[in-house]
Amino acid sequence: MTDHTERKRPGRPPGASDTRERILEHARELFSRNGFDKTSIRSIATAAGVDGALVHHYYGTKQQLFAAAIHIPIDPMQVIGPLRETPVDEIGLVLPTLLLPLWDSEIGKGFIATLRSLLGGADVSLVRSFLQEVITVEIGSRVDDPPGSGAVRVQFVASQLVGVVVARYILELEPFASLSPESIAKTIAPNLQRYLTGELPSLS
Amino acid sequence: MTDHTERKRPGRPPGASDTRERILEHARELFSRNGFDKTSIRSIATAAGVDGALVHHYYGTKQQLFAAAIHIPIDPMQVIGPLRETPVDEIGLVLPTLLLPLWDSEIGKGFIATLRSLLGGADVSLVRSFLQEVITVEIGSRVDDPPGSGAVRVQFVASQLVGVVVARYILELEPFASLSPESIAKTIAPNLQRYLTGELPSLS
Repeated sequence: MTDHTERKRPGRPPGASDTRERILEHARELFSRNGFDKTSIRSIATAAGVDGALVHHYYGTKQQLFAAAIHIPIDPMQVIGPLRETPVDEIGLVLPTLLLPLWDSEIGKGFIATLRSLLGGADVSLVRSFLQEVITVEIGSRVDDPPGSGAVRVQFVASQLVGVVVARYILELEPFASLSPESIAKTIAPNLQRYLTGELPSLS
Repeated sequence: MTDHTERKRPGRPPGASDTRERILEHARELFSRNGFDKTSIRSIATAAGVDGALVHHYYGTKQQLFAAAIHIPIDPMQVIGPLRETPVDEIGLVLPTLLLPLWDSEIGKGFIATLRSLLGGADVSLVRSFLQEVITVEIGSRVDDPPGSGAVRVQFVASQLVGVVVARYILELEPFASLSPESIAKTIAPNLQRYLTGELPSLS
């Protein structure tokens, strides 16, 4: 982190929120056009006409900036961090156990609203890129057995999780929407685990 | 069926398409307000100012009218019919084997577009009603073991299926979106079957 802006302009500079928003807009545009991996903080800073340090100052890591760009109001490391410590045989349960209470919370409301707008026709390339590049790399690399299956294993997991979001928060099916987060997590856990480490039919 | 209109007004009557559309609008309104079960063809006909026989003539059964109201371009019986003949132990495979090719087809495009608009913020009460009243009654009653679990079993199945739709047709995740329909069906089948007839944790 840096106190770059504060040095130049003491106090909250006029127009700082404009600058933050401008950074975010260029981040969305570049992440959307080039994907997560191929977009650098530097290129976003250049596009927004600011110093790279200012981008870090406002948004932290590239992952955190990405999360802000797609309106995820938490640091993805809150989920990715604990998952790194989790044995692969337990991810099927730990992943929904982390996500459900988050989605159920106030914080989750913004996320659901964003998902809704994305599903409704907004540009999905950012979410696709997040799922394909961030999540697939994080988890897919650990369940890549047989080799090459990791990405698709993770995507089957994603399909179940996004379906839970739609059924619970958008369609609000009853009794599904009123089940406790623990009930949902425990019920889908064996299915997620099968996608991650179970034997799947040969895919074509 | 009846040839009611034809008797009264030979040839294609002027304004027939207006009448069809008016029936559909009132059907949407009533299904949306009162749900599937509590809405009768007669009440829709009355609201639209036409004879009940005309509604049947244009749209067939109440299920077919409902499908038209939510822009499902096929008769739900194309799926529900074969399922009735399917032993419950095989529904986990038969259901996605029926649905995936349908979703992949030209017909499916209209369905995906509708789902997209629903997810995007349009009134979801019709889809909710379809899932809760039609599908839950059709399938839930056959997998209601222990008693009372049928509805939620079906809704877990729905969550996985809607997640496949989102991942494959809206997010277009790769390689997921390019897998054959058979691959998707076979991969999710054991998971759907577990939701339908497997032992689930006690739900609260």
